[in-house]
Amino acid sequence: MTSGSIRDEEQAELLLLSGGGGGARLAAGLHVATAGERFSVVTNTGDDFEHFGLAICPDTDSVLYALSQQIDPVRGWGREAESWGVFAELSKLGGPDWFQLGDKDLALHLIRAALLADGLGLCEVTAVLARRLGVTSAASIMPATEDRVRTRVITSEGEMAFQEYFVKHRCEPHLIAVRYEGIEAAKPALPLVSLLENAVGRGVDVVLGPSNPFLSLAPILDVPGMPNLLKERARRVIAVSPIVEGQALKGPAAKIMSELGLSVSAAGWMQWMSDRYPGLIDVWVWDERDHELADTMRVTHPNIVVTDTVMSDPERARQFAERILRVSRDGD
Amino acid sequence: MTSGSIRDEEQAELLLLSGGGGGARLAAGLHVATAGERFSVVTNTGDDFEHFGLAICPDTDSVLYALSQQIDPVRGWGREAESWGVFAELSKLGGPDWFQLGDKDLALHLIRAALLADGLGLCEVTAVLARRLGVTSAASIMPATEDRVRTRVITSEGEMAFQEYFVKHRCEPHLIAVRYEGIEAAKPALPLVSLLENAVGRGVDVVLGPSNPFLSLAPILDVPGMPNLLKERARRVIAVSPIVEGQALKGPAAKIMSELGLSVSAAGWMQWMSDRYPGLIDVWVWDERDHELADTMRVTHPNIVVTDTVMSDPERARQFAERILRVSRDGD
Repeated sequence: MTSGSIRDEEQAELLLLSGGGGGARLAAGLHVATAGERFSVVTNTGDDFEHFGLAICPDTDSVLYALSQQIDPVRGWGREAESWGVFAELSKLGGPDWFQLGDKDLALHLIRAALLADGLGLCEVTAVLARRLGVTSAASIMPATEDRVRTRVITSEGEMAFQEYFVKHRCEPHLIAVRYEGIEAAKPALPLVSLLENAVGRGVDVVLGPSNPFLSLAPILDVPGMPNLLKERARRVIAVSPIVEGQALKGPAAKIMSELGLSVSAAGWMQWMSDRYPGLIDVWVWDERDHELADTMRVTHPNIVVTDTVMSDPERARQFAERILRVSRDGD
Repeated sequence: MTSGSIRDEEQAELLLLSGGGGGARLAAGLHVATAGERFSVVTNTGDDFEHFGLAICPDTDSVLYALSQQIDPVRGWGREAESWGVFAELSKLGGPDWFQLGDKDLALHLIRAALLADGLGLCEVTAVLARRLGVTSAASIMPATEDRVRTRVITSEGEMAFQEYFVKHRCEPHLIAVRYEGIEAAKPALPLVSLLENAVGRGVDVVLGPSNPFLSLAPILDVPGMPNLLKERARRVIAVSPIVEGQALKGPAAKIMSELGLSVSAAGWMQWMSDRYPGLIDVWVWDERDHELADTMRVTHPNIVVTDTVMSDPERARQFAERILRVSRDGD
């Protein structure tokens, strides 16, 4: 069976909910595995912020760069073959330099600013940027909401904006709670609603990427109406564990789980997700390194799939994406 | 007599009104000739505009770069040893690329945006930027007004913003008139008022640089109260002709004079300035290449000084600046 044959007309449309790190890697893998057909990505907007008066959307940009195959493979964010002319001068002139801005990356922020100033909405802007970056195929990338949602982190050192916690403080303060400012007034983005409501054939399967549950997925899933929209309209919701052998492959997910008093394991993650979003998730995807724990948990949760989830390079990301496609087709 | 000895404690404070081209060259020359002591520059804000949501102040920036000896000597604007990483990507992504933005230049615009967002006024921001760029000495650079003034050009192809006329259309449309949007509600910037009102000793001599009268000086001098402030508080106002042998050394001044039906000569310029700002100017500085015309005009205007005004390199700019210092000291 060739990789292409997995994907036939009877396959459901695939919708990935993604943060910026592992989610973007899986997005790139799925984009290749699906040839961009009937595949879309919903991005977290809780990380969005204003810097120098420019709207910066880190998770959306990571997915844009990943799908256009221009993401820096080493850093895992930003553009590859990046230059740092502006940033070097910014530092030299004593400007705020806690957030690294590459020249190519900055060009995208400037174009986004110009498009927003022209009156385009965030979804339209993202579609234009995807086209300009050369995201081939029909894959569409859409922010989860066009309403302003800002992740704020309550820590031992006080409450701070997400970027302050994540970049300036390198996730060092002890996390007490997370809140998503503005989320109570937010609505799911219209293209997302439309995609789910107008799905034909086998409908839509939703994949929750191996993204940070507190900082990447909750700002999407806590948008009022979002869980019900997914439950009612998605054929199947598949969640990929960000925890492998008690560790997060990247980022602070494990540290935060520990600080919140959760068991730092795929089981702890599954428990938190089930409590927070009851009845939402149909299939849990764990890494095969946790197969023993998975066997134990299957007594109460038969819907756990184990596989190699570690996307250390684009080829492994593609292989994992094909496994996700099989889960989507066959349910396991 | 060494250049230093020209400037003694009995010399008046010097205040240059400047656009971005010849004015910035004279600013650099005067900064060297005065060692930055008791020397200030007032910059035109009519060219200011918003681009990608950033406040861009081209004339102020030219003076900042000139005084910090970082202006590109060939282009006559922007930073020397500039790189173009952002701009190249901007063009590649189909972003608005009619206004050239170097990386170092852009870093300044970003810092200005951050300072303005912090609530600082344009004068404070300019002072911070001057310090960060390493403008040595006490020379202060101040925008003519902190109120929003925008030069708009009425042309054969319709009315357009200054940058659209100047950069996008390369001054090609036939100019019919110029207006300064918002100027009726503008006030001279407080540091400028304070400098003029609190001058001690010999007071303040004001120099109108060889800047475009319609596009650079009028947006300063038409600020309500500005001519009277200068007339009442300046000891002497010295105006440098931007026209040499019927040509502008750079920029569209001669073309515009012709389109407005004026005689394209230092005499035509003097006439326009006298009509527009009656009683303001005490000494007219013409280029020596126009000495014959000057001799004729002296019958009715004895206060014309002729000298070499062509500032083709920093040394010639310094020599011309020293000549201006002598005019300030001796009146001719």
